[in-house]
Amino acid sequence: MTTPLDIAVIGATGSVGETLVQILEELSFPVATLHLLASMESAGSSVMFAGKKLKVREVDSFDFAQVKLAFFAAGPAVSRSFAGKAEQAGCTVIDLSGGLEDALPVVPEANAERLDGLALPARISSPSAAAVALAVALSPLKGLMEIERVQVMAALAVSAQGREAVNELARQTAELLNARPLEPRFFDRQVAFNLLPQVGAVDEQGHSALERRLVVELRELLGLADLKISVTCIQVPVFFGDSFSVALQSRAPVDLAAVNQALDSADSLELVEPEDYPTPVGDAVGQDVVYVGRVRHGVDEPEQLNLWLTTDNLRKGAALNAVQVAQLLIKPRV
Amino acid sequence: MTTPLDIAVIGATGSVGETLVQILEELSFPVATLHLLASMESAGSSVMFAGKKLKVREVDSFDFAQVKLAFFAAGPAVSRSFAGKAEQAGCTVIDLSGGLEDALPVVPEANAERLDGLALPARISSPSAAAVALAVALSPLKGLMEIERVQVMAALAVSAQGREAVNELARQTAELLNARPLEPRFFDRQVAFNLLPQVGAVDEQGHSALERRLVVELRELLGLADLKISVTCIQVPVFFGDSFSVALQSRAPVDLAAVNQALDSADSLELVEPEDYPTPVGDAVGQDVVYVGRVRHGVDEPEQLNLWLTTDNLRKGAALNAVQVAQLLIKPRV
Repeated sequence: MTTPLDIAVIGATGSVGETLVQILEELSFPVATLHLLASMESAGSSVMFAGKKLKVREVDSFDFAQVKLAFFAAGPAVSRSFAGKAEQAGCTVIDLSGGLEDALPVVPEANAERLDGLALPARISSPSAAAVALAVALSPLKGLMEIERVQVMAALAVSAQGREAVNELARQTAELLNARPLEPRFFDRQVAFNLLPQVGAVDEQGHSALERRLVVELRELLGLADLKISVTCIQVPVFFGDSFSVALQSRAPVDLAAVNQALDSADSLELVEPEDYPTPVGDAVGQDVVYVGRVRHGVDEPEQLNLWLTTDNLRKGAALNAVQVAQLLIKPRV
Repeated sequence: MTTPLDIAVIGATGSVGETLVQILEELSFPVATLHLLASMESAGSSVMFAGKKLKVREVDSFDFAQVKLAFFAAGPAVSRSFAGKAEQAGCTVIDLSGGLEDALPVVPEANAERLDGLALPARISSPSAAAVALAVALSPLKGLMEIERVQVMAALAVSAQGREAVNELARQTAELLNARPLEPRFFDRQVAFNLLPQVGAVDEQGHSALERRLVVELRELLGLADLKISVTCIQVPVFFGDSFSVALQSRAPVDLAAVNQALDSADSLELVEPEDYPTPVGDAVGQDVVYVGRVRHGVDEPEQLNLWLTTDNLRKGAALNAVQVAQLLIKPRV
């Protein structure tokens, strides 16, 4: 049995933070005291945990010496402001914001071994939903083929951008169905019944931060420092569930039977048979696994492997993965 | 001046056929008599053309000797049943259904020269919206780089599947916003706020007919018989406008400045600057050009070129391209 732990969740009132608190309860994570924290604006509200109403307090005045583990599920700026303070107080940080560039990205299915010799307190990150899904799906394939290149089109749900984005998609959709003039608010244009081929600002080279982040994280998670990764992140009018069209390039023909067997026997994957296909709504949302379907060679090209992935961006793509990392940290070594 | 021509439009009551009749009028195509035809179920209704109400008659009893040119905009089965009859009567067929495998795919911006020596009557096809968009965007780049591979994710609007599909997306969306239980009708599952990673049935190798068709058509249109093309077609909850995430692989570094210049000066392309990006709604729909944006190298990979395309699937993706092919056919040779 593991000794219960004092824990802090920063950003407890956001979509990811709320899901995280829910998952701590679902997985019976051994919590002694749970400190729920948020920025000044969100402090004061309450969140349910294990049948009790817990008050959300201000992160600014929190003494991190009270906890051994802190989940940072607010924005990147909050992580950057308080992660150092937490570590200095002896608290291990699991960041879900993408704001800590020096944090070690961990997805248990891909690189759990990186936690083995890690000195605590440490700075760990639960990577972007795209990196989590790809790491879970590609790790079982690494031994079967020499992956030269990964080509990804990531179709992201609005919920990754918080409740405001969810409300905005619903509001825009209702306005359009009622033939009322549309004034975009959260997004800079119509997102309902539309596709936005860019998520966030792009740099001089034309890549968004999210696209750059996926490249760095996936190379680290797969332990393939030179892997060629090309990615386009787009915003789709879907509330929950991220989807990924993936093409893997190999030098030799890919053994499809072996690929299917590896995907089918991986714990965190649900392989969908060729007659069917997985979708965010109906399959992935609310589930703890990454769904994989449309497994096939390229047209006239046995050296290519095509996949379609879909996963709950708030669960395995964020909160669930972070809690699974914490589960590894509290596991007794012997 | 061109002598006005007797013309037939088969499938005149469908989304594509209706758009085609509208475009014949918009472009002042020299029509003598326009015969509107449809299957038995749709015959009897009327369609407006040049200020007149034209009655839609049954294709079964039509004498194709009355016309020199017939646009087939009904389903593949109708094209297969009547295209032979039309040709035997001396009528050139422009097929928009994808049902005639031996028809020559033509996109004026890509392979207009294929019409030069063509003996008439002929069997021509206006290719899939995906092939049109890619042919228009890649033709100006062929001289600038040796394209080794094209990787495409095609996000298709529901309107490509006809009015029923459009109504179904609207109906599903309204039901969901009103929190009523959803019973999918036209699609086999929820398409509203969801992504379906497969359009139509797949073959033994896991490819859909639409994916196979794009490969064949694009190789022909670009005149690159050995081009490696990999494609995933998905259904998105968008009413009108198809979008394409495209990655081109070359052996040598791609000159971005030259690419931008070539795209910018191409007639049927609208290049969107890096600070902005094109979307189906707001940009492409109702327009006659293919929008291109997010022009960039791969991350750490100057040999790769990434693009985002979006186009009106009923206009340039179908009806407009077919009429533009017809314009070339009626053009005096000297």
